[in-house]
Amino acid sequence: MFTHDTQIRIRYSETDQMGYCYYGNYAQFFEIGRVETLRSLGVSYKELEQNGILLPVLNYEVRFIKPALYDDLLTIRTLVKKIPRARVDFDYEVYNENNTLLTTAHTTLVFISAENKKPIPAPEEIVRKLSLYIKE
Amino acid sequence: MFTHDTQIRIRYSETDQMGYCYYGNYAQFFEIGRVETLRSLGVSYKELEQNGILLPVLNYEVRFIKPALYDDLLTIRTLVKKIPRARVDFDYEVYNENNTLLTTAHTTLVFISAENKKPIPAPEEIVRKLSLYIKE
Amino acid sequence: MFTHDTQIRIRYSETDQMGYCYYGNYAQFFEIGRVETLRSLGVSYKELEQNGILLPVLNYEVRFIKPALYDDLLTIRTLVKKIPRARVDFDYEVYNENNTLLTTAHTTLVFISAENKKPIPAPEEIVRKLSLYIKE
Amino acid sequence: MFTHDTQIRIRYSETDQMGYCYYGNYAQFFEIGRVETLRSLGVSYKELEQNGILLPVLNYEVRFIKPALYDDLLTIRTLVKKIPRARVDFDYEVYNENNTLLTTAHTTLVFISAENKKPIPAPEEIVRKLSLYIKE
Repeated sequence: MFTHDTQIRIRYSETDQMGYCYYGNYAQFFEIGRVETLRSLGVSYKELEQNGILLPVLNYEVRFIKPALYDDLLTIRTLVKKIPRARVDFDYEVYNENNTLLTTAHTTLVFISAENKKPIPAPEEIVRKLSLYIKE
Repeated sequence: MFTHDTQIRIRYSETDQMGYCYYGNYAQFFEIGRVETLRSLGVSYKELEQNGILLPVLNYEVRFIKPALYDDLLTIRTLVKKIPRARVDFDYEVYNENNTLLTTAHTTLVFISAENKKPIPAPEEIVRKLSLYIKE
Repeated sequence: MFTHDTQIRIRYSETDQMGYCYYGNYAQFFEIGRVETLRSLGVSYKELEQNGILLPVLNYEVRFIKPALYDDLLTIRTLVKKIPRARVDFDYEVYNENNTLLTTAHTTLVFISAENKKPIPAPEEIVRKLSLYIKE
Repeated sequence: MFTHDTQIRIRYSETDQMGYCYYGNYAQFFEIGRVETLRSLGVSYKELEQNGILLPVLNYEVRFIKPALYDDLLTIRTLVKKIPRARVDFDYEVYNENNTLLTTAHTTLVFISAENKKPIPAPEEIVRKLSLYIKE
């Protein structure tokens, strides 16, 4: 398994009138989690796109255990458990500063060609780097 | 089962550089779907809150079949299949103008007291109105 | 002068913990205002882009007089006072259901070529249609 | 004058199909700029609110010189030039990693009482701390 932690602080714009971080904003946090996970492996998602590879989301599931609040400094833990093929799975855990688990989530994304929007195999660089951490 | 259709048009702000509606924005569309579903039953979510009842999301699952694009006029179909108790489940289907199914989703929300944040039974008015449509 | 009214309803996601519509969201409302203004003239902003014309914002000024609140049904009034050349100016007024003026704003946008990002003259169709309403 | 620099990275969700950071998102960046400016002075905006002080935006002006792009690491420079009274003015400059000026902006906010929404003087702590840097 490969895990990576990144931190984000809840913006005022991300609160709602319930005083919680709006449930729709977590999708952005998980996007940051996976982009920073790739960056920690030396892979730039920006460059993937420039090389004609897109990575849209197929499935997204999230469970809200406790709310995140304004100005909370959250840890987004991203977990990769399987070597990606055409698809890549990420798990996520969100913790606040007291190390309380607030949220868990899962996404499945698919590597596609920007040109024809057809699925393609995971880039060899990502497979090779993750293989150092994930034994199958 | 009770179903309700509402329409939204994809804003430029909701696109991303892939040219798709960003996956995180659908949470807002489903919020609109359930608020308009309640409104069609004569229930104002705004007034629920003013009466001390909050309705945070516990679980949210979404499956992306085809992308929504800029300026698409989407139909958000919201389905209620069970009479709510402390929790309420909504299913969603998103169609574009060609009646192509783009997205399906499910949320579970919980009625809580604004005062003490404890779960409470679904408001009697909602239960009564949905009972006209849902036989259990 | 050419004016056009369009309506939007404040989403829960657009509120903040102050109980107001977050000040950053108005930019989206004004985008809707100008896109619907163009549509009312028979011009699709989507098609403009497909024809290689982009319309980024150069300047944006907004004055907040009274807050918009959750579930408010707002009228976005968009005003075009001058025939556009390379640049196009829009003024905006936001009213709530009591016809109270909540917000005024102004944007300047510039027509550019998608290909080389250089300024280009306003599309002849827009100039011609606005000329029916604006005397200079 | 008091100045403070903070950094943000452009999220995928913040891009639009023009490939630019959407113009409406900068309002969030400036919110971060002023909150981090206050934090650098030892003032927590979160605690201000908990003490019954709100700080809504009255005016916001922004000029877009060059676009910010996906994954850009931006520096938000926040400038306070005058000691606040009931109102507080912030200026902003946004730079990319090449130190190119992308955007300038100005906001005026007003200190109000959460209880009755009436203007109140700037908190003494903020005035005192800024007075160390701003000579009038």
